[in-house]
Amino acid sequence: MPPIQRLDTGPRMSQAVVYGDTVYLAGQVNKDVADVTGQTAAVLKQIDDLLARTGSSKEKILSATIYLADISKFADMNKAWDAWVSAGNCPARTTLEAALAAPEYLVEIAVVAGK
Amino acid sequence: MPPIQRLDTGPRMSQAVVYGDTVYLAGQVNKDVADVTGQTAAVLKQIDDLLARTGSSKEKILSATIYLADISKFADMNKAWDAWVSAGNCPARTTLEAALAAPEYLVEIAVVAGK
Amino acid sequence: MPPIQRLDTGPRMSQAVVYGDTVYLAGQVNKDVADVTGQTAAVLKQIDDLLARTGSSKEKILSATIYLADISKFADMNKAWDAWVSAGNCPARTTLEAALAAPEYLVEIAVVAGK
Repeated sequence: MPPIQRLDTGPRMSQAVVYGDTVYLAGQVNKDVADVTGQTAAVLKQIDDLLARTGSSKEKILSATIYLADISKFADMNKAWDAWVSAGNCPARTTLEAALAAPEYLVEIAVVAGK
Repeated sequence: MPPIQRLDTGPRMSQAVVYGDTVYLAGQVNKDVADVTGQTAAVLKQIDDLLARTGSSKEKILSATIYLADISKFADMNKAWDAWVSAGNCPARTTLEAALAAPEYLVEIAVVAGK
Repeated sequence: MPPIQRLDTGPRMSQAVVYGDTVYLAGQVNKDVADVTGQTAAVLKQIDDLLARTGSSKEKILSATIYLADISKFADMNKAWDAWVSAGNCPARTTLEAALAAPEYLVEIAVVAGK
């Protein structure tokens, strides 16, 4: 069995789990800003930071699942996504609407990446 | 690190990402038909086609997540699913209701497969 | 290609799929009890049992996605989760609200684990 490495492990979850050559991130959220574009940019920055700590990067993301509290904000989310994603290295992606753990959360993004 | 191969890579996402022996597909949608059974069949055909291009097939699907715009159409979705899935080789599956990126989308299916 | 092993394979899905060193479980649900804390505990027991049959265990869970029929029950779900999860070995986790396949289902949990 490949080794399992966990980052930022609290009593409930880890923010990243590395299993051999694959990285699983917890769904990332950020309520420091109050609009979807800004929250998406902040979440994507958190993803960059977590991936960097595992030896991965956005160029190696395999799949991303994007949860939007209000699907009518799809274009607002994509504004930050499109500015961030690595051209030529885009992941498989799924986007859906879902109420999230706190009403302040407008977007949550979970990714699986290679390393 | 295993090689990453991406199929149908646009500016926002790839429709398939192959990482070593594992294939991640983007959530597949199809609005060419207006009923859930028909959309599910069309989506499953897209999954067949994408998997074939990666050297995989429905017999090798590991997990499937099915998003239904209206969970009351669960039986209608399953009508197409049950006719399609490979007996003896069914994936782990999760089905939930979620509003999708466009109101015309009644079902979206994301899969992870071996190859 | 690594071997694929499937457990509890019915005509529609398998409850567990093992692919090399990775285990994918179907979303687990349980309607034997009528409250979220009790359903979560029952679902987590099912996950323990399925993982044990694959040679895995909760200490090796990589990621978990938790679907709550009513996100306002987040704390009730966590009561069972926190009592169950392996301290120091928590998975990456994502929690969202989603209507599930039957109204009796208050929570569904899907996991990916190492073995």
